Amino acid sequence: MRSHPPTSPRNSCVTIFLAALAICSIAAAQQTSPPTKPIETNDRSHADDIRTVLTKQANAWNDGDIDTFMETYWKSEQLTFSSGGKTTRGWTATRDRYKQKYTSRELMGKLTFSELDVNVFDNSTALVLGRWHLDRKEQAGGNFSLVLRKLDGRWLIIHDHTSANP
Amino acid sequence: MRSHPPTSPRNSCVTIFLAALAICSIAAAQQTSPPTKPIETNDRSHADDIRTVLTKQANAWNDGDIDTFMETYWKSEQLTFSSGGKTTRGWTATRDRYKQKYTSRELMGKLTFSELDVNVFDNSTALVLGRWHLDRKEQAGGNFSLVLRKLDGRWLIIHDHTSANP
Repeated sequence: MRSHPPTSPRNSCVTIFLAALAICSIAAAQQTSPPTKPIETNDRSHADDIRTVLTKQANAWNDGDIDTFMETYWKSEQLTFSSGGKTTRGWTATRDRYKQKYTSRELMGKLTFSELDVNVFDNSTALVLGRWHLDRKEQAGGNFSLVLRKLDGRWLIIHDHTSANP
Repeated sequence: MRSHPPTSPRNSCVTIFLAALAICSIAAAQQTSPPTKPIETNDRSHADDIRTVLTKQANAWNDGDIDTFMETYWKSEQLTFSSGGKTTRGWTATRDRYKQKYTSRELMGKLTFSELDVNVFDNSTALVLGRWHLDRKEQAGGNFSLVLRKLDGRWLIIHDHTSANP
């Protein structure tokens, strides 16, 4: 069996240099790869997740369950809800507004969303436009803009601006 | 004058190794620094730049200059403007809406913004809430939500949802 040649100081230096070069190449490769995914206006998986949030919202509404409906909103006092020239600040105030405005299943009606336009800016921010309609005795509808952020792995509405048809 | 010592192969190797080590250190330092700034809800410089955009908007409006006012919007057919239950799509259609709705300086009045709430999510996306008021014969006002993105180094409004007081 051949013995390995004794390691000379020269050989050690070459070995260390090659190792350094390898580390440099890895570091450089990691450095040149994009730090985050490029901006994609229609990231399928995020868009699908966001549509699921809106489906959950509509289902909860149509079950008359405002508490579950409210789970799709960021539970923060920084949540903002704008409508009819007024901005409600905070998750609790937003929930209370809904509960005060929709005191019965008749008033809640059947909610449907349409014309959903999901714009995913990056892995953590999205803008959704769409139309809402309440099928009830006094029909109601309009459009909305939602800003969502992915917080702790969940897409949540952090701002809602809803307008009613004139 | 002292001559430089002749460069030995051993010295060359040490030099190359030290150079490699230095490059590695720089690469590693660059790699460990965050690829983008962390999410800051109140990044001062971005917030200041965005306030400048809104000041430019109000100044242009108060000069009766809708074309300059429109420069603060993303010149794209993907721009969206929502108001009163209707969503206008595209920069040209948004400009035309303003020009059709505000045919005189009297109708434009004097625009002021107030209660500006600038939320910078990262280096490229922000949400601004605020109130608008038109000082004119028939006073008008309400609230708005603007989504801005930094595109080619400029913060531009990519979505505007404006509501009037009831």
